[in-house]
Amino acid sequence: MTDPSATPPDHRPDRRPGGRTARVRAQVLDAVRAELAEGGHEGLTMEGVATRAGVHRATVYRRWRDVGGLLVDLIAAAGEIEWQPPDTGSLRGDLTALNQEIQQSLVVRPSFAVALMAVSFHSEQAAQAQRKLWADRYAQCAVLVERAAERGELPSPVPLHTDARSLLIAATAPIYHQLVLLHDDPDPGLPERAAEAAVSAAVAGAFSVARESGG
Amino acid sequence: MTDPSATPPDHRPDRRPGGRTARVRAQVLDAVRAELAEGGHEGLTMEGVATRAGVHRATVYRRWRDVGGLLVDLIAAAGEIEWQPPDTGSLRGDLTALNQEIQQSLVVRPSFAVALMAVSFHSEQAAQAQRKLWADRYAQCAVLVERAAERGELPSPVPLHTDARSLLIAATAPIYHQLVLLHDDPDPGLPERAAEAAVSAAVAGAFSVARESGG
Repeated sequence: MTDPSATPPDHRPDRRPGGRTARVRAQVLDAVRAELAEGGHEGLTMEGVATRAGVHRATVYRRWRDVGGLLVDLIAAAGEIEWQPPDTGSLRGDLTALNQEIQQSLVVRPSFAVALMAVSFHSEQAAQAQRKLWADRYAQCAVLVERAAERGELPSPVPLHTDARSLLIAATAPIYHQLVLLHDDPDPGLPERAAEAAVSAAVAGAFSVARESGG
Repeated sequence: MTDPSATPPDHRPDRRPGGRTARVRAQVLDAVRAELAEGGHEGLTMEGVATRAGVHRATVYRRWRDVGGLLVDLIAAAGEIEWQPPDTGSLRGDLTALNQEIQQSLVVRPSFAVALMAVSFHSEQAAQAQRKLWADRYAQCAVLVERAAERGELPSPVPLHTDARSLLIAATAPIYHQLVLLHDDPDPGLPERAAEAAVSAAVAGAFSVARESGG
């Protein structure tokens, strides 16, 4: 949900973090981001990435095999970034901050987030990797809903609880809809309004589910 | 918001509806839909469309000029289809029916609706045409909100009213989010739950705006 500009470490145990392998990966993934941003996924080639990264083509082929491998690793790298969900003291504030962060990542030009979504229409491998990234981010954001329930901001009659994923989708979907699907100009008030609407619905019990069947 | 499978009439005054010109347009646009569904927009060529349609290439070039022209006319044709928003007697029922129709259009394989969205990431011409189609559909659906207000289902203290577009986006965005951006499996209960959540938020006043500034 955030634009991954940091360089993720290489987690494989046989490779020293910060060593040559990690540097090559950082150079190659930076090149993939730049190529995607400039030409979209149609323009992405192993040769173009190797040239831009200043890395031997043979290395790129050996380690990532094909363009699909590059995209999957790029999405994996986004998932490795240290990301903390907002903690403003209220659910409305947290969801507004989350929406502002999403809006920013979609509005920046070129948007790496939009390029990834465009790619996932055409590559099943990229779509799967992206699905996993989203699932991780929703799981991380469940704490927003837990904290709100503890503060008494949400209805919590046992055995019901608020389904975090449904609430998070309701809160964030209008931002993506407006910017990614409608290709509309960003609306500075939308992050807060969409957060507020989702909180209203949650307070009214719209996302309440039985504790057994909920996630 | 619906899968345009009907053949739209040619509205230009100098061409008799149902005549040869309209037949050629129908054949060509059917071929574009089939090519898009099979190979996405990357596989779309003037030659492929002409061959599949059984129409002379010169005719296709003269009338649509390039692939961008084909896509724009395809989206225009979707906007020409007679489409009526649902009228079930309640806002919740109307939005549920609308969401079911959207879900159906996104789930069907191949999905013309998804293909168009994928194309609009890469073609500014297609994105603009699609933006106009969405604007028309939201305008058509405003009647759902007006009828609900007349039935007393929504808060309507003068000078406030419910902003139809914001309510419609909140109600429908989770369906697109789930199916188009998350690439998740369809959830048969989602159309109703998303409709219900949006109605709860609307009743709580989340989409109320001053009558002067509202659309």
